[in-house]
Amino acid sequence: MTELQFQETDPFAPIHYVYEVEEIICSRRTEHQQLLIFKNGYFGRVLVLDGVVQLTERDEHFYHEMLTHVALHAHPHPADVLIIGGGDGGSLREVLKHKAVKRVQMVELDRGVIEASKEFLPTLSTGFADPRANVLEAKGEEFLEGTGDKFDLVIMDSTDPVGPAAALFADECLASAARVLRDDGMFVAQTESLHFHLDFVREVQVKLARAFKLADLYTAPLATYGGNWWTFSIASKAHDPREVRRPCEIDTKYYAEDVHRQAFLPPSLRQKLIDG
Amino acid sequence: MTELQFQETDPFAPIHYVYEVEEIICSRRTEHQQLLIFKNGYFGRVLVLDGVVQLTERDEHFYHEMLTHVALHAHPHPADVLIIGGGDGGSLREVLKHKAVKRVQMVELDRGVIEASKEFLPTLSTGFADPRANVLEAKGEEFLEGTGDKFDLVIMDSTDPVGPAAALFADECLASAARVLRDDGMFVAQTESLHFHLDFVREVQVKLARAFKLADLYTAPLATYGGNWWTFSIASKAHDPREVRRPCEIDTKYYAEDVHRQAFLPPSLRQKLIDG
Repeated sequence: MTELQFQETDPFAPIHYVYEVEEIICSRRTEHQQLLIFKNGYFGRVLVLDGVVQLTERDEHFYHEMLTHVALHAHPHPADVLIIGGGDGGSLREVLKHKAVKRVQMVELDRGVIEASKEFLPTLSTGFADPRANVLEAKGEEFLEGTGDKFDLVIMDSTDPVGPAAALFADECLASAARVLRDDGMFVAQTESLHFHLDFVREVQVKLARAFKLADLYTAPLATYGGNWWTFSIASKAHDPREVRRPCEIDTKYYAEDVHRQAFLPPSLRQKLIDG
Repeated sequence: MTELQFQETDPFAPIHYVYEVEEIICSRRTEHQQLLIFKNGYFGRVLVLDGVVQLTERDEHFYHEMLTHVALHAHPHPADVLIIGGGDGGSLREVLKHKAVKRVQMVELDRGVIEASKEFLPTLSTGFADPRANVLEAKGEEFLEGTGDKFDLVIMDSTDPVGPAAALFADECLASAARVLRDDGMFVAQTESLHFHLDFVREVQVKLARAFKLADLYTAPLATYGGNWWTFSIASKAHDPREVRRPCEIDTKYYAEDVHRQAFLPPSLRQKLIDG
């Protein structure tokens, strides 16, 4: 092992994580950002964009399963799914596990992330070869504004909501997301840590409540995102996302029906942290 | 702000946390370990023992509330409480919030931690002045083996179970803990991260099931312990610790009845991670 270390430089977190680096797998400049993949003895391959860890092979399933499967089991018939971001392919892989899903449109700003994932993250990027998957290189907010397509589910799998991803959480963009959804459509986004980004989480809840009939919040424990107590903000035009409407018939490491139900904040905490 | 940084050197974690240091509050050698208290702009004062962060003012309530209040609300009449470790005073402060508690015996190996807490961590150390609190400087395992006292609740608030704290999780010590408990007594210990220390968590569950009628596990999300998805292993001689037997009449920031119930692992996860 070398003595190399990687220290995260996340302007959005008050704590920084340091990883031992066994090997640099890939380090390159894409059109949009600096991309690094290194190998850590414990976490496996680690994807870093502009100094911020995006995923590790060891714990990415917590994030990708929870970002996707809650809405996919709460929606009665999720046939058409839109993924904004998610260029590493992890969310796409999870969405495609569902036979009910007939088509996935991915809109990713940076094709360089997709290319690196296909080349160096084989356990993440399996879904790109699926005939149900379509990839478009574009800004999420511009696609949402311009498309005439309709979806059952919109998944926002973005980087931290600073820089390019900030526009995705503007009122206009969330209204566009509501517009592209069918009448029983659902929306879900990764929305940072309940420890470190409480103001942001609250703000998203308020905005989602303006754009949708129902706005809610659930969490998952992640090992490698600063603050860890990770939030997923979910919104719905008709059905309560807390309810499981389809049996869980897919292989998962973390998600299950009881995990789904228990992931939503207990009422007392929701009151103290979000609504209080 | 200075450019000082503190990097944790936790041999028990595959990731290391880095904190900005605004000010060194205290740095000294106790009889047993190196003690550091520094101030961070976000977390407030941070207590470090032998290079490992023990608590921060900002998020210690997650840990101390969840270590103490689950058993204190599951036990029908917790009058006599034993705390092993916990020299910073956080657990003592929480236990003493309960009027039902008539006496707390703390057994702490390192009086230097208590002294530093009294001097520099005023929000943690309030309980030491309470007439119900007694402090003994001794090794936890030796006290448990030798005492003729009886308790309703034993709380093990130890450092990482390597070095001095390892002996606390030996079968003999857990059997001693069961022996000092009355017939409806409960036991709870902090037992590290479900992400990083799963083998240890499993091992403790097996040992507790040998020493007690019931062994169980619940978690809380912490911001500042490596792995974050923190486990508390709980055991009981009579009553199921999942049940809340006394109304919650104390001020808390995180703990509540619904948090209590939701903190235990969903059955599917318990099966996958612990029993599988």
